Amino acid sequence: MTDTFREGDPVLLYQDPRRHWIAKVGEGRFHTHRGYLDLKNLVGLEPGNLVKTSLGQLIAAFKPRLSDLVDSFDRPTQILYPKDIGYALYRLGIKSGDSVVEVGTGSGALTASIAQSIAPDGRVYTYESRREFLRTARKNLQKTGLSRLVTFRDVDPSDGFLERRVDAAVIDLGDPWKMVGPAWEALVGGGVIAGFTPTVNQLEKLAESMRKNGFLILEAVELLVRDFKTEAGKVRPESRMIGHTAYVTIARKVGSKE
Amino acid sequence: MTDTFREGDPVLLYQDPRRHWIAKVGEGRFHTHRGYLDLKNLVGLEPGNLVKTSLGQLIAAFKPRLSDLVDSFDRPTQILYPKDIGYALYRLGIKSGDSVVEVGTGSGALTASIAQSIAPDGRVYTYESRREFLRTARKNLQKTGLSRLVTFRDVDPSDGFLERRVDAAVIDLGDPWKMVGPAWEALVGGGVIAGFTPTVNQLEKLAESMRKNGFLILEAVELLVRDFKTEAGKVRPESRMIGHTAYVTIARKVGSKE
Amino acid sequence: MTDTFREGDPVLLYQDPRRHWIAKVGEGRFHTHRGYLDLKNLVGLEPGNLVKTSLGQLIAAFKPRLSDLVDSFDRPTQILYPKDIGYALYRLGIKSGDSVVEVGTGSGALTASIAQSIAPDGRVYTYESRREFLRTARKNLQKTGLSRLVTFRDVDPSDGFLERRVDAAVIDLGDPWKMVGPAWEALVGGGVIAGFTPTVNQLEKLAESMRKNGFLILEAVELLVRDFKTEAGKVRPESRMIGHTAYVTIARKVGSKE
Amino acid sequence: MTDTFREGDPVLLYQDPRRHWIAKVGEGRFHTHRGYLDLKNLVGLEPGNLVKTSLGQLIAAFKPRLSDLVDSFDRPTQILYPKDIGYALYRLGIKSGDSVVEVGTGSGALTASIAQSIAPDGRVYTYESRREFLRTARKNLQKTGLSRLVTFRDVDPSDGFLERRVDAAVIDLGDPWKMVGPAWEALVGGGVIAGFTPTVNQLEKLAESMRKNGFLILEAVELLVRDFKTEAGKVRPESRMIGHTAYVTIARKVGSKE
Repeated sequence: MTDTFREGDPVLLYQDPRRHWIAKVGEGRFHTHRGYLDLKNLVGLEPGNLVKTSLGQLIAAFKPRLSDLVDSFDRPTQILYPKDIGYALYRLGIKSGDSVVEVGTGSGALTASIAQSIAPDGRVYTYESRREFLRTARKNLQKTGLSRLVTFRDVDPSDGFLERRVDAAVIDLGDPWKMVGPAWEALVGGGVIAGFTPTVNQLEKLAESMRKNGFLILEAVELLVRDFKTEAGKVRPESRMIGHTAYVTIARKVGSKE
Repeated sequence: MTDTFREGDPVLLYQDPRRHWIAKVGEGRFHTHRGYLDLKNLVGLEPGNLVKTSLGQLIAAFKPRLSDLVDSFDRPTQILYPKDIGYALYRLGIKSGDSVVEVGTGSGALTASIAQSIAPDGRVYTYESRREFLRTARKNLQKTGLSRLVTFRDVDPSDGFLERRVDAAVIDLGDPWKMVGPAWEALVGGGVIAGFTPTVNQLEKLAESMRKNGFLILEAVELLVRDFKTEAGKVRPESRMIGHTAYVTIARKVGSKE
Repeated sequence: MTDTFREGDPVLLYQDPRRHWIAKVGEGRFHTHRGYLDLKNLVGLEPGNLVKTSLGQLIAAFKPRLSDLVDSFDRPTQILYPKDIGYALYRLGIKSGDSVVEVGTGSGALTASIAQSIAPDGRVYTYESRREFLRTARKNLQKTGLSRLVTFRDVDPSDGFLERRVDAAVIDLGDPWKMVGPAWEALVGGGVIAGFTPTVNQLEKLAESMRKNGFLILEAVELLVRDFKTEAGKVRPESRMIGHTAYVTIARKVGSKE
Repeated sequence: MTDTFREGDPVLLYQDPRRHWIAKVGEGRFHTHRGYLDLKNLVGLEPGNLVKTSLGQLIAAFKPRLSDLVDSFDRPTQILYPKDIGYALYRLGIKSGDSVVEVGTGSGALTASIAQSIAPDGRVYTYESRREFLRTARKNLQKTGLSRLVTFRDVDPSDGFLERRVDAAVIDLGDPWKMVGPAWEALVGGGVIAGFTPTVNQLEKLAESMRKNGFLILEAVELLVRDFKTEAGKVRPESRMIGHTAYVTIARKVGSKE
């Protein structure tokens, strides 16, 4: 890990939970509602320090976490939330060195998160048949520095993934049941699969397809996350929250070919 | 990844979401409510296959995921739940190669999860002043094969961690505010910290301590997970659920020493 | 309202949130885990006072609220929860003097709650084709003193309710969609209907039936209630909670016959 | 209940869950985004019928439920939600003929709801020391036709309510603990109290005050309500929901004066 910001590094400019941005060290000015920052001045600064805008607003300059970068992705599709990504990664048991297939790539949010989990020498094979999505995802991944761990495939894998004996499979598209059979073929014995489905009808159909195609469903869950205000003497949940994103189904491949 | 079970491998014997156990391949008999398995017979089997007990009950023999092993840990203390662990790991941004301090070790559930995230060459320094807990945690970690990534320290770090410039810090004990100052000293600039607190009063006090000791709080959340029944035509949430485990507070170190 | 307990009055003996019972003043002894009470001694006592068992355990003697009585009902079927009943009554807008049809009666939990809302001169017409349920419900209602407001009908109203121009209709049985058309006929113009459905599939089918049969759906919701521990310095939600009971759908009749 | 709309009746003009308004039958034109309605034309119409705006938009004309009227109240203060009101009313066990004290009146949302529950011959005594709030509340109550059941008191009852032996007490203001002692004095033996508190700190302090002032806490809860989309084949919770309004504490008076 480098000690100080260098030209070209991504930087998270953080004012408060609602106002934070990703920028690139060394390139021009960054404008906020309360003055601008000269991004050249960040070169040589230790991450985590506060900097002042031209109007005196203090802003923290952090190295972005992966979830900060993902949060800033261009997103042609609905993006999964940290609650869903964090849970799925943990339950998939994905770890350094694993090989994983994913369909569809979408904006690459999940792709990047899987890639970070299998670093430094695993591999993610991500399938996306919509070309313009794949282009955006490639660009998004570039920002994370994880592209070298990802193989992008612009084909529809409903006729079969190209990979075999992968450790895990992730399905995040509108008709996930079409990918269940192909995922079974691609997975190693006992391999883990995760499916994301926004509607209950999709959840029902996905689960049925899993059961019919040689998977044992471990769990189907929804996660709710509630933000808290923590000011002393005024602790309470925020008034508004996200009510729903997607159901997460986790299953494992059972049996082998013949 | 090995292709077939070998003598001494851990195995997850999975009957259904409520009946599953961790055993060791090759050692004696494993007794269930519906007959026993000869664990010797698993040698050479490909993971994910179904085996039959002496009474004909089918059971899947899986390679355990880390969360399966953690679930089977001896636990002298309340253990964190996958929803909390998965979220915290993702928000901490912990990744391959990182160095992390943790206090207290407890049963080692979180220690193991962090260790898997920083593999193959990062390091976890975990502090636990209660000797008998540390002994249990060491044994638990051994089962995961991740011990080589963990340094156990049987001291109370409220006077200071031994490490410097670590990427992340995790606090999970009854009076977390005592560890906030020491964690600031141990972290690299902009380093991320996570605290787990069961009561609202602890959350309030921890958050206040973080703000006073040079941290910027990114979020304080609670996560709720609801299990679903997915049988076709009868989809519904389970009648019972976990109502609360702990609040998770995520913050970043701001500023530097002098 | 009477000032003191009289022979035959129902009494709520309340030790703590998990140990409380309904008894009848004046009749024999009431045994708890920590001694017994002579129920004769309650005669003349002002409600709300503490009494002592033979072993010195303090127990509060309250006049039961309706929800206490309902909680003690014999229940051949799954009973609705206060969260669902309270919400539905408020959203149905049921008030003193209203006439309401209900199907099915089940244990009479909802029947009693509606009856209390339409007192002193409204009327509930409740339908239940399973004779043994109706017998239990009648007995349950007797305990509440609200029977005079209820007409029990042991017929299946899927061919039509006997009533016309009622203010509200409540459907709580396994195939609620069969009752939607008949409810439309029974309701006054703009009358409100509530349906309770445990599974998502039932919710979907009920909602579709409502839309096709002249109703405007105002809302379909699920309610979650979390209990808190409130001991000073240790405030937190309880570890366990009810994850699901039923979805509540509220709609209004639109249009008129010809 | 009257059968058709008459001049001066309140009417709920309902287009969809987000677009609905309260108007008065017979008075001028009502303008929507898609044309206007001549409110005179509603005279003689049976409630529940659809009417057409000048631009052809269909709108249902309903008799407003109380919760519709409350929803349209002028609100100088944060208003409680139906989930909280419905639950509290049911748990308070308030019924026809009861007498209830309330502090503070606020916008009168809860006042009106209690008034409907104690009709036709109970009474609500509501205290509000902020004159301008009381004025708004009076006006709001007028719209509901329930004013005759309400006594407004423009004094601070922290020195004592004027009433004695009331069946229930409701506290909804910023420092509810001040009212706990006075409420005990005002309640009948075993009388029920409900307190609403937005922050955890208020909940903690209220609960402590209740325990010290002769109350037995039955429960302290928070309610979450999730709205569902019910379109066939696309059933799912709404993306956004209310994360928090207030904690509801229900307790009963124990003991008597001397």
